[in-house]
Amino acid sequence: MDKLAELFELEMEVRDYECDLEGIVNNAVYLNYLEHARHKYLLSWGIDFARLHTEGIDLVVTRIEIDYKRSLASGDKFKVRVSARREGHLRLVFDQEVIAIPDGSTAVKAKVIGVGLKQGRPVKIEGIPGFENFSA
Amino acid sequence: MDKLAELFELEMEVRDYECDLEGIVNNAVYLNYLEHARHKYLLSWGIDFARLHTEGIDLVVTRIEIDYKRSLASGDKFKVRVSARREGHLRLVFDQEVIAIPDGSTAVKAKVIGVGLKQGRPVKIEGIPGFENFSA
Amino acid sequence: MDKLAELFELEMEVRDYECDLEGIVNNAVYLNYLEHARHKYLLSWGIDFARLHTEGIDLVVTRIEIDYKRSLASGDKFKVRVSARREGHLRLVFDQEVIAIPDGSTAVKAKVIGVGLKQGRPVKIEGIPGFENFSA
Amino acid sequence: MDKLAELFELEMEVRDYECDLEGIVNNAVYLNYLEHARHKYLLSWGIDFARLHTEGIDLVVTRIEIDYKRSLASGDKFKVRVSARREGHLRLVFDQEVIAIPDGSTAVKAKVIGVGLKQGRPVKIEGIPGFENFSA
Repeated sequence: MDKLAELFELEMEVRDYECDLEGIVNNAVYLNYLEHARHKYLLSWGIDFARLHTEGIDLVVTRIEIDYKRSLASGDKFKVRVSARREGHLRLVFDQEVIAIPDGSTAVKAKVIGVGLKQGRPVKIEGIPGFENFSA
Repeated sequence: MDKLAELFELEMEVRDYECDLEGIVNNAVYLNYLEHARHKYLLSWGIDFARLHTEGIDLVVTRIEIDYKRSLASGDKFKVRVSARREGHLRLVFDQEVIAIPDGSTAVKAKVIGVGLKQGRPVKIEGIPGFENFSA
Repeated sequence: MDKLAELFELEMEVRDYECDLEGIVNNAVYLNYLEHARHKYLLSWGIDFARLHTEGIDLVVTRIEIDYKRSLASGDKFKVRVSARREGHLRLVFDQEVIAIPDGSTAVKAKVIGVGLKQGRPVKIEGIPGFENFSA
Repeated sequence: MDKLAELFELEMEVRDYECDLEGIVNNAVYLNYLEHARHKYLLSWGIDFARLHTEGIDLVVTRIEIDYKRSLASGDKFKVRVSARREGHLRLVFDQEVIAIPDGSTAVKAKVIGVGLKQGRPVKIEGIPGFENFSA
């Protein structure tokens, strides 16, 4: 167990408002891309970030390591890859990559660690609705 | 040399639009805070991110490690601390912290690595206007 | 009655990440500036946007008219002016201006209309905690 | 001439980071949606916002009127409709709508006015590369 869940990919595209005065996607925007892909990935496992919040469980990020390999700019297409694994009872580790289309070069590589919080305290992943079936 | 430049601090405040549906500042927004503080810090050394771009030099981030220790929410005040050091000829390393006001607890701790690019190629920090006097 | 509340002003500054690839503040970002100033203005009347939400009342925007007169760019300082008036029982009208510092020129002029919603239905402003004393 | 250009539609989806602490898409984010759809629309006519900037012509927004009819929230799908017409030699008027999917209800209705600037001065639309063939 704790094997890698199947690879998940989401295609997206740079929007002009995401580029800063250097004409390239701003460093913070990649965290938006990564989050959106993670949430769609979790949703594919029946885990709904927004619904969990209304049920009193907040998924939060505790650490991100991100390497910016090359810049994306106006009009660039890309896919965000997500895979996940558990680390102990409490932590989820997401390995993510932003891959430029069509040349396949890596724009960004990231490791994102998250936990679930209930009333401010870490909650076991098994106790989070949807995560029972989550094979990560 | 390559000693730590003097500590720099910038006071800021959470704006409501920076909070996401969990009611806390979104993880990507901290990268905005960190960037704004870095740019003000560099400006205090006479290094102007926007002017450098018009002169053909782009300061870009190559890696970020960020630990989220506690959440900030609507109305919270905080300060962003910045110090910097050189690593070799090409890289600048910024050690940054987001400190909640008034309790002084650490909300975020980050290490941000950046380089200067000229026509896409790394440029020596000494060749960047303003960096001559930069003691980091 | 329904007279103009006293003028409120908030000083702010352009952050580099708010500028888009044209090197000027993106059109959507001004709505962030306007909202932040409105919420600080309401707070000065004891009306707390975030707390109201936890109490089941959501202040929402129903219409904005905004004129972009001149662009702001990296490093520009400005103040956001807010005044408010009631229109009927349900609507608040905010007249707002973004004024460049130090030259005093108008960057943006806006009229923002908002209402309070309780379980999705408009709620009388008098029924919103804090608004009793609100002279707008 | 000056007839309405053919209707253009772009499908999009709410991303969780676009929702604010009220759990709904923040008012400023709709301007992002509208801009992205306008730029894709212009691109379908061969008019490239980013390339124009590098050629010294900046398309800028001078006025927006926007009505918020109903809120969008996490996971909602929608399409942005764009049509355009010229007003005089200098101004482009975009009529835009954000339509919820699948129920077809209007979330947002907007009128956006833009001009082209060359060295800060309005430039005739006919002088902007791509706009010759633009039937709006």
